[in-house]
Amino acid sequence: MENVYEKSIELHALHGGKLEIKSKVPLTTREDLSLAYTPGIGAVSEAVSQDPDRLWELSIKKNTVAIISDGSAVLGLGNLGPAGAIPVLEGKAILFKEFGGVDAFPIALATQDTDEIIRTIKAIAPVFGGINLEDISAPRCFEIERQLRAELPIPIMHDDQHGTAVVVLAALLNALKLRGLGKEAKIVMNGAGAAGTAIAHILLGYGFKDLVVCDSQGAIYDGRPGLTGDKFELARMSNPGKVRGLLSDVLAGAHVFVGVSKAGLLTADMIRSMSERPIVFALANPVPEIMPDEAKAAGVFIIATGRSDFPNQINNVLAFPGIFRGALDNRIGQFKPEMFVRAAETLANYVLDPSPEQLLPDPLDRGVGPAVAKVIC
Amino acid sequence: MENVYEKSIELHALHGGKLEIKSKVPLTTREDLSLAYTPGIGAVSEAVSQDPDRLWELSIKKNTVAIISDGSAVLGLGNLGPAGAIPVLEGKAILFKEFGGVDAFPIALATQDTDEIIRTIKAIAPVFGGINLEDISAPRCFEIERQLRAELPIPIMHDDQHGTAVVVLAALLNALKLRGLGKEAKIVMNGAGAAGTAIAHILLGYGFKDLVVCDSQGAIYDGRPGLTGDKFELARMSNPGKVRGLLSDVLAGAHVFVGVSKAGLLTADMIRSMSERPIVFALANPVPEIMPDEAKAAGVFIIATGRSDFPNQINNVLAFPGIFRGALDNRIGQFKPEMFVRAAETLANYVLDPSPEQLLPDPLDRGVGPAVAKVIC
Repeated sequence: MENVYEKSIELHALHGGKLEIKSKVPLTTREDLSLAYTPGIGAVSEAVSQDPDRLWELSIKKNTVAIISDGSAVLGLGNLGPAGAIPVLEGKAILFKEFGGVDAFPIALATQDTDEIIRTIKAIAPVFGGINLEDISAPRCFEIERQLRAELPIPIMHDDQHGTAVVVLAALLNALKLRGLGKEAKIVMNGAGAAGTAIAHILLGYGFKDLVVCDSQGAIYDGRPGLTGDKFELARMSNPGKVRGLLSDVLAGAHVFVGVSKAGLLTADMIRSMSERPIVFALANPVPEIMPDEAKAAGVFIIATGRSDFPNQINNVLAFPGIFRGALDNRIGQFKPEMFVRAAETLANYVLDPSPEQLLPDPLDRGVGPAVAKVIC
Repeated sequence: MENVYEKSIELHALHGGKLEIKSKVPLTTREDLSLAYTPGIGAVSEAVSQDPDRLWELSIKKNTVAIISDGSAVLGLGNLGPAGAIPVLEGKAILFKEFGGVDAFPIALATQDTDEIIRTIKAIAPVFGGINLEDISAPRCFEIERQLRAELPIPIMHDDQHGTAVVVLAALLNALKLRGLGKEAKIVMNGAGAAGTAIAHILLGYGFKDLVVCDSQGAIYDGRPGLTGDKFELARMSNPGKVRGLLSDVLAGAHVFVGVSKAGLLTADMIRSMSERPIVFALANPVPEIMPDEAKAAGVFIIATGRSDFPNQINNVLAFPGIFRGALDNRIGQFKPEMFVRAAETLANYVLDPSPEQLLPDPLDRGVGPAVAKVIC
C-alpha cells in the first residue's frame, strides 16, 4: 500500500492535478472568434436569457455536473476541510468523464455551515445540469440534499449515500441469489451515517423486512431514547422485532452483515454466531471491519470490501457515472428511490455469471455506465 | 451581422456548449484507478489537508481560474441574468485556454446581491488559483472586487474594468505616438461605469493629467453635487481644471475621445470641435458612439471600436489570457495597478510597426499571451 500512496503523489505532482478544460469549437480564424465570442455570442445570450430552458440546448448545462464537498468526511479520513476534498473531487471528475461521458467540475466549499452550503450551491447552480454532493458528513448531508432537491430544478445526489447504496444492493442481490436466499434474509448493518442510512432505505424500499441497523450504542429500535431526525425515522422503518442489544448480540443468526463503520469491528467469533455460510460486506475504508482472509477462515460464504486489492470491491464508480449520464440524457427533474433500485438491479444483472468472487461488474468495463444510464428515467 | 448571430446559435446547438472537461491522467488499468482515485488519493488528500499550499503542486489550482458573473451587465445587452451570462462565460473560458493555456470554468450566479455574491465566491474559492469577474454592473463591481481582493489569497480581476483598461491604454500609447503626442494629451472620456472608471484610473496612474470624464450629466468635477463612492473619488483625481458642461462642451479642443457609453453619442460636429486630427475610441458595443466611416469623414486621424469587423478592435482577449497566465505562473498574491500598466506597454510594444489602422496585435497571435504573462509579476 505504501507504494500506491507515493506513486499517487508523484502522479499528481507530475500533471498538476488531474483534469483540464478543452474547447469543443475551433478558434483559428476571426470568424471562429466572432461565432464563439463577440459579436455572435450576443444572440445566444439573448436567446437563453429569454428562455433559460434553452441552456439545455445551447450551453454546457446538458452535460455538466458539479461535484461539491465541504471536506467534512473525506473518504475514511474524516474532516480534512476543503483542501483535502479537492484531490477526491478531481478524481471523481475524471471518472465521470471516462465512464459516463459527463463533464464534471470539482467545487470545494470553504464553509461547513449547512445553511451557507445550501445558499452557496443554489447561487452557483445555473450552469450545472446536476449536482453530485460528495464527502459531506451526516447528519448535515441529509438536510443539505433534502433542501437542495426541494429548491433546485436539477437532479441532486449525495454519492456517499445513494451511489454506495446502489452498489451495495446490487452486490447483495447477487450474493443472496448465490446463497439461495430472498427478501426473507436477515440483515444486520453496522453504521448509521450517510452510507448506512441510504443503504437502509434502499434495502427497505426494495422489500427486505428483517433489517436491524446498529450505531455505536447498538441496535436502533423504535422507542430507543434520544433518537432524533433521520435515526428516529430509521428506527420506525426498520427492526420490526424491536431487537435490542450490541452488534455482537443482534448479529446472532443473521444471514448478512453490512459494515459501513470502522476497521476491525467484526470478529471471527461474531461471524461464527451468524447463520451458516453468511454474507459479509465489510466496507470500512481503507481498513475493513474484518480482513477477507480472517472472515473466510471464520466460515463466510461471500466477503466484499471497499478495496481494489480484494475481490468484490463495492466501488461507487459502478454507479455515479451512469446515474448522472441517465439523469442528463433523460432530463429527469429529480432522483427518485425507484431509479436507484433499477440502477442496482441493472448492475446485478450485468454480471452474467455471478460467483462468490464476482458479485459486480468490472469497474473498468465501459458498458456499465450506459447500461445504468438507461434506467435513470 | 444577421448571419453571424444565426451561425453562432447553430454552432452552440451543434456542440451543446463550447467546453468540456478532460482527464490529464490515464484511466485504463486498475492501477490507474488506484492512483487517480482510491486508495492512492488518500495520501494526496492528507498531504494537501495538512498543507493547503500544496494544492498549488498537487491539484488543478495552479492552472485553474473561475470566470464568474451575475449577468447584470452582459456585453452591451444589459441585465440578462445568470442564464444570459453563460454563453459569454463559456466563450471566455475557451479563449483563456486557447490564448493563455489557462483552464477556466464558467460560474453564473443566481443572485445579484453584493454581499451574497462576495460570500458565494469566497465559499467556492479553494479550488481556484484566480478569479475573473465578468459582466457585473457598476457600482457593485467595484465593491465586490475590492472586498474579494481584501479577503481572498488569490488574484481577482473584474475584466470589464481592467482587461478593457489595459487594451485601451495599449492602443492609446500607439495612437499618441503616431500623432506625436505624449502625456500632455487632452483626453475626454464618456462613460463612468465599470470600464470607464478603470480606464480613468489606468490613464491617471500612467501619468496623463488632462483627463475629463463625463457621465450622463456631463463632466465629472470635484465639487459636483451628488457625487458618491467611486465617482466622488474620480472627481478628485481627474479634471484638474474643474471643467463643467456637457460632453459636447468639454470635448472642444480635445486630442482624444474615449467612449464607453452608448451608440451614436458622438456626432461629426463634435469631432470637428476637437483638436486637429483627433483620436477617437468609440467602444460602445455592438454599435459604437460613431461609425468609423462617419468619424473619418469628420476628420479623425485614428478610430478604434470594439468590433471585429473594423480595424483597431479593442478586444479584451489581448489581455486577460496573458494576465492570468502570468498571475498563476508567477504566483502573485494580488493584482496591482502597475502590472496592468506593464501589460498595456507590452501590448503596445508588441506591434513592431504601428499604423493608424493597426494599433494593436492581432487577437489570434499566439505570442501575445505569453508576452503579457511575463510582466504580471
